[in-house]
Amino acid sequence: MIRTLNVGMIGHGFMGRAHSNAYHRVNQFFNVPFQPVLKSVAGRVKDTTEAFARRWSWERAETDWRRIVEAPEVDIVDVCSPNNTHCEIVLAAAAAGKMILCEKPLAINLDEGCQMTAAVERSGKANMVWFNYRRVPAISLAKQIIEEGRLGRVFHYRATYLQDWTISPGVPVGGPATWRLEKAVAGAGVSGDLAAHNIDTAIWLNGPVARVNAMTEIFIRERFRRDGSPARVEIEDVCSFLARFENGSNGTFEATRYARGRKNKNSFEINGEKGSIYFDLENMHQLQYFSHEDLPHLQGWRTILVTGVEHPYMANWWVPGCVTGYEHTFVNALADFLNCLEKGERARPDFRDALETQAVTEAVLESAQTESWITPAALDP
Amino acid sequence: MIRTLNVGMIGHGFMGRAHSNAYHRVNQFFNVPFQPVLKSVAGRVKDTTEAFARRWSWERAETDWRRIVEAPEVDIVDVCSPNNTHCEIVLAAAAAGKMILCEKPLAINLDEGCQMTAAVERSGKANMVWFNYRRVPAISLAKQIIEEGRLGRVFHYRATYLQDWTISPGVPVGGPATWRLEKAVAGAGVSGDLAAHNIDTAIWLNGPVARVNAMTEIFIRERFRRDGSPARVEIEDVCSFLARFENGSNGTFEATRYARGRKNKNSFEINGEKGSIYFDLENMHQLQYFSHEDLPHLQGWRTILVTGVEHPYMANWWVPGCVTGYEHTFVNALADFLNCLEKGERARPDFRDALETQAVTEAVLESAQTESWITPAALDP
Amino acid sequence: MIRTLNVGMIGHGFMGRAHSNAYHRVNQFFNVPFQPVLKSVAGRVKDTTEAFARRWSWERAETDWRRIVEAPEVDIVDVCSPNNTHCEIVLAAAAAGKMILCEKPLAINLDEGCQMTAAVERSGKANMVWFNYRRVPAISLAKQIIEEGRLGRVFHYRATYLQDWTISPGVPVGGPATWRLEKAVAGAGVSGDLAAHNIDTAIWLNGPVARVNAMTEIFIRERFRRDGSPARVEIEDVCSFLARFENGSNGTFEATRYARGRKNKNSFEINGEKGSIYFDLENMHQLQYFSHEDLPHLQGWRTILVTGVEHPYMANWWVPGCVTGYEHTFVNALADFLNCLEKGERARPDFRDALETQAVTEAVLESAQTESWITPAALDP
Amino acid sequence: MIRTLNVGMIGHGFMGRAHSNAYHRVNQFFNVPFQPVLKSVAGRVKDTTEAFARRWSWERAETDWRRIVEAPEVDIVDVCSPNNTHCEIVLAAAAAGKMILCEKPLAINLDEGCQMTAAVERSGKANMVWFNYRRVPAISLAKQIIEEGRLGRVFHYRATYLQDWTISPGVPVGGPATWRLEKAVAGAGVSGDLAAHNIDTAIWLNGPVARVNAMTEIFIRERFRRDGSPARVEIEDVCSFLARFENGSNGTFEATRYARGRKNKNSFEINGEKGSIYFDLENMHQLQYFSHEDLPHLQGWRTILVTGVEHPYMANWWVPGCVTGYEHTFVNALADFLNCLEKGERARPDFRDALETQAVTEAVLESAQTESWITPAALDP
Repeated sequence: MIRTLNVGMIGHGFMGRAHSNAYHRVNQFFNVPFQPVLKSVAGRVKDTTEAFARRWSWERAETDWRRIVEAPEVDIVDVCSPNNTHCEIVLAAAAAGKMILCEKPLAINLDEGCQMTAAVERSGKANMVWFNYRRVPAISLAKQIIEEGRLGRVFHYRATYLQDWTISPGVPVGGPATWRLEKAVAGAGVSGDLAAHNIDTAIWLNGPVARVNAMTEIFIRERFRRDGSPARVEIEDVCSFLARFENGSNGTFEATRYARGRKNKNSFEINGEKGSIYFDLENMHQLQYFSHEDLPHLQGWRTILVTGVEHPYMANWWVPGCVTGYEHTFVNALADFLNCLEKGERARPDFRDALETQAVTEAVLESAQTESWITPAALDP
Repeated sequence: MIRTLNVGMIGHGFMGRAHSNAYHRVNQFFNVPFQPVLKSVAGRVKDTTEAFARRWSWERAETDWRRIVEAPEVDIVDVCSPNNTHCEIVLAAAAAGKMILCEKPLAINLDEGCQMTAAVERSGKANMVWFNYRRVPAISLAKQIIEEGRLGRVFHYRATYLQDWTISPGVPVGGPATWRLEKAVAGAGVSGDLAAHNIDTAIWLNGPVARVNAMTEIFIRERFRRDGSPARVEIEDVCSFLARFENGSNGTFEATRYARGRKNKNSFEINGEKGSIYFDLENMHQLQYFSHEDLPHLQGWRTILVTGVEHPYMANWWVPGCVTGYEHTFVNALADFLNCLEKGERARPDFRDALETQAVTEAVLESAQTESWITPAALDP
Repeated sequence: MIRTLNVGMIGHGFMGRAHSNAYHRVNQFFNVPFQPVLKSVAGRVKDTTEAFARRWSWERAETDWRRIVEAPEVDIVDVCSPNNTHCEIVLAAAAAGKMILCEKPLAINLDEGCQMTAAVERSGKANMVWFNYRRVPAISLAKQIIEEGRLGRVFHYRATYLQDWTISPGVPVGGPATWRLEKAVAGAGVSGDLAAHNIDTAIWLNGPVARVNAMTEIFIRERFRRDGSPARVEIEDVCSFLARFENGSNGTFEATRYARGRKNKNSFEINGEKGSIYFDLENMHQLQYFSHEDLPHLQGWRTILVTGVEHPYMANWWVPGCVTGYEHTFVNALADFLNCLEKGERARPDFRDALETQAVTEAVLESAQTESWITPAALDP
Repeated sequence: MIRTLNVGMIGHGFMGRAHSNAYHRVNQFFNVPFQPVLKSVAGRVKDTTEAFARRWSWERAETDWRRIVEAPEVDIVDVCSPNNTHCEIVLAAAAAGKMILCEKPLAINLDEGCQMTAAVERSGKANMVWFNYRRVPAISLAKQIIEEGRLGRVFHYRATYLQDWTISPGVPVGGPATWRLEKAVAGAGVSGDLAAHNIDTAIWLNGPVARVNAMTEIFIRERFRRDGSPARVEIEDVCSFLARFENGSNGTFEATRYARGRKNKNSFEINGEKGSIYFDLENMHQLQYFSHEDLPHLQGWRTILVTGVEHPYMANWWVPGCVTGYEHTFVNALADFLNCLEKGERARPDFRDALETQAVTEAVLESAQTESWITPAALDP
């Protein structure tokens, strides 16, 4: 018997759309023990929130997020509003005893992240942070390959997150589509928006980061707001860093929105003694794998088309050779969350995991500022 | 004001799932003038049909397809049952004055296809055949490039549809998943299942086929049914043919389910005087394009990542760099159908278009049998 | 102790350059029992022949090829003059008891090819035809993979040879660079020039061709000579054919010089029960290999970088990761010839092998003309 | 009239082979005003040096390099002996008034490099350092694209040099093949051997490096000599660094011999405002280029097959579509040197250029040791 779970979602921008889609689809494609009910969605502007609610079949539209947090019938609060609102909402939702799903980055700084994590852990309720890329089937397959011991001792981890949408000086600062360029709202630039994805994936696949050494840059410092007023850009366009992992391997990371021609190149390569893997989100249905254990004359990088029934999540979708895409990662994540909830297991990454990523992000920014190697802050257990 | 359209769907296998998904999603991602209502679905077995209806929120489950055709409230009959049932259902639905959406191949032979087309044209109602690959954004972009005149005079058309799922002799014949291997149900083998896609795309992009010269083969002739009884395979595993197009270009086509390592390689390459394009469904988010009009030292095949707002359909989905996949083609097709319905235009490919493909398919099979060049049958206007 | 072999080469065009290079380099890179001595080269025009001889350190330049054939000190006659001269030269050289190396295509028709083969076989001297692509390390590796039994029963062979250099109507007919467009000199068009390579490779890798069914085309029928006089093009631009191999597999072949953007796409794909391979001369340092015997979740097409010491020929060149290119295939072929000579083995492909290819080429042209399936002529043993 | 130049080469290992090949081939493929004569080659061991001289047609074999430097008839001294011998030889050759061609890295440290550069500049003779990769046609094309202004303002430079041949602990230290693992002979590890290539290319394409911040690592510290005695590895396996270029762009660099599956991945990507380019030595016949000035719906990364007559160096080799490889870069470099010699121009990179690379390499190693940003030493003009 499938039980219902009432969801209240705060925020209805790009991520609100992706999450709404996931709530509608999870029971169509997965046999999970719970059925999310799209109860209420909150936004600041009445009209657009109501239009969103109609389009996505949310039962109610609210203009005050507190109505959602306080509603007794809401089981899950889903936070996908701008970064600078996460903390207050999460603290309130935790206090109200809700399960919480929160968009990444967790917080605008480590301090807020610690408060939030403490709060949700005190509440003892299930929680998850939407680092959706763990649920790209090819990345989950990478995790499986590593856990099967196919890479052996790891020497190198090499990650990029390259985009090019902010190169034009005409891209405005602020507002619904571009609050990510606004310091006060986003907290940080590509470190939190892009590098955070790289870091979450890296920690998942390669373990804790021991030290980082970073540089950041702002290539375009003068932009404009939508109303034409000047806006000084204060968030970093670029975030590159060297890293030492606790397992002895070395890492290089680079995140930018100034890599002309790269639209969503969230890539990583891991080089181990026995094998290597490579992934690129622009070809997210593929995983490249090199095995040193193949016969010498037959060794080569394999392009695994990650669409088979034997691949993570894919048996739930179509048939081999049929590609899935971006939004499926959210459905996969939600299915995992619901299954973990039933079993009483942590759905990863949860707030605690996201806090570890936040600590690395913060160390990266501090390193760039101080021009020195920084060890991420130790987190309370 | 969005008007509702009541849909009755006959069949709930793989395609029933893809269509149901499209009905649910079209209004979430597209601003179309109609909203499909999932009224009733028909299947032969009560339990599985009801389970399907529950999962996909169809209001009613029927075990007799005539209940759907006869229901006054049904506006659209969607036919996705096995090939050998298409004709009877379509004739009845046309007689009942329904709009009809039909899965491909249109019919198990040209004769049935002609009857069906005549019937729907007599009824005067909107109709469409689900050759969904026209709505792969990259293929629609190919069409646009051709219409912009970027290829110039065409010399070559080269298409494949390669899969490998029937190589194992243990794959059974018949039943829900493998009726495509059964002559009486499927009508033909890869000609109707795979080559028909190639042909539909080719006619759309390169115009009518004048003559064909084919060979077919059955690599494994002895299989078994699920109950262990022997089954002689009578449908072709392979369908390769040479073609002459009416525009003077040459074509080569190959469809098979015996190409080890190819899962869904529905590919085409068009070579024109001024440029060329290449597509492969296994990387369906990409289109390769070569322009002879680039500066000589800079000429090269471009890999266009078809995810931008300027690409067909993509502004309706996510943001540049976010890949869509297999099922989106059905949503795109449905959106087009609904927009055409509003405007009173033909939604292509309709029965008439699919009949042209059927005529080529039939010529291909005849050519293979007679070992001679065959001109596809002329169709009544 | 290395023994010398005196070479006399007839022709000094593009192939004369490639062969001269091979004679100079073979002893620098291979430990072979013979050292070729560049004795004399023949060409029609005194000045250009002498200039060529100086540049490539040939001891003598001749303007009458008979001087080479008749010279007692010449051990090997190397024929790389235009196709229509092969027969006469080879017959004379065989009569003079020379070893013969001959460029492909062997002859301008099967009849001449038979005479030539009979002559060299009567002479009993070592002979070889320069189908150099067998010596692309990646193609030799493909042969090795097949002989190791890694493909299993073969279902499909799919070959192309695509170029685009004759699309411009301004390319003249005839003369040193473009005699390949002249019927009287070249004998045939892409069938002999390009498809012959595909056929030689196919027979080597997949065995004899049982039947063919072809179409040819001439896209541009009116060109000009260098002097501006009109020239009617009578050799085929395109040669596409279906094939049945004796081993039961199916083949598709396409050769053209009208594939815009393809410069040298000599490709083949072989699909077997257990694995597949793919090669493309434009990336000649790579071989793609798919093994169905890999673990299911790890299966994928491997890109083998064919530069390792364990790969054919490569231990003679540089170090792993260092790419070799076009001209190395001639050096590899020459090394094989010299080693076979020492051992008294046939250096393949010899005249007999090339004759088999010629028979298929002739069947292809006959099939295109008669629009019917043709069985290549049986050759005398 | 071609004049001869007598060459004396010191060293006959891997590079001695590549250089010998270049001396033999340059006049066969290029019309240059000088013809190198392979006069004498020096090595430490009589037998192997004589065998090498025989194979490569050097007139004399010497076991004391001073015989070459002191020989009056020698015009050019070519230094391709191990790194720790460069300085002494170059100083002697400069004092003897010879032209000098020197292998990279220039020296085992900056101090020696300065002495060497001062000496050759005092002598006023033509000199060049064999950073051969500038002469990969695709890299020369990259330079051309940049000089044509097609990238606009540069934001990012991203380079790797990845190999995997030292992962096995069984690879010995020292001796003819592996002196590169020996501190006293090689001076440095991958910094000088691999990263130096990246740096030379980067400076050529993107200008001077202002600051660097590096990390190095030794993954395997205990190896053995060929005689079985233990050898502590003291040269770095890995060299990763962040960089700031003087033009305001950011750089990331990584060189390693521990990247399983990467054989010779010398890659770079440059992201500019208007376009980007990407190169990988494992596919050295290709250059990837993205132009933001293409029409929006047609933008994509172009794979330029760098084999056309309009591409650098390629008109001297074969025909379009015919790939050249590793050793051709040395022939191209030598041709450039000879042409510059005739014109009295600097053949780049010369000692002065290589010294700039050496300064960056030294800064990188100092940065890794001090864990801080380092500005490369200013060089005397």
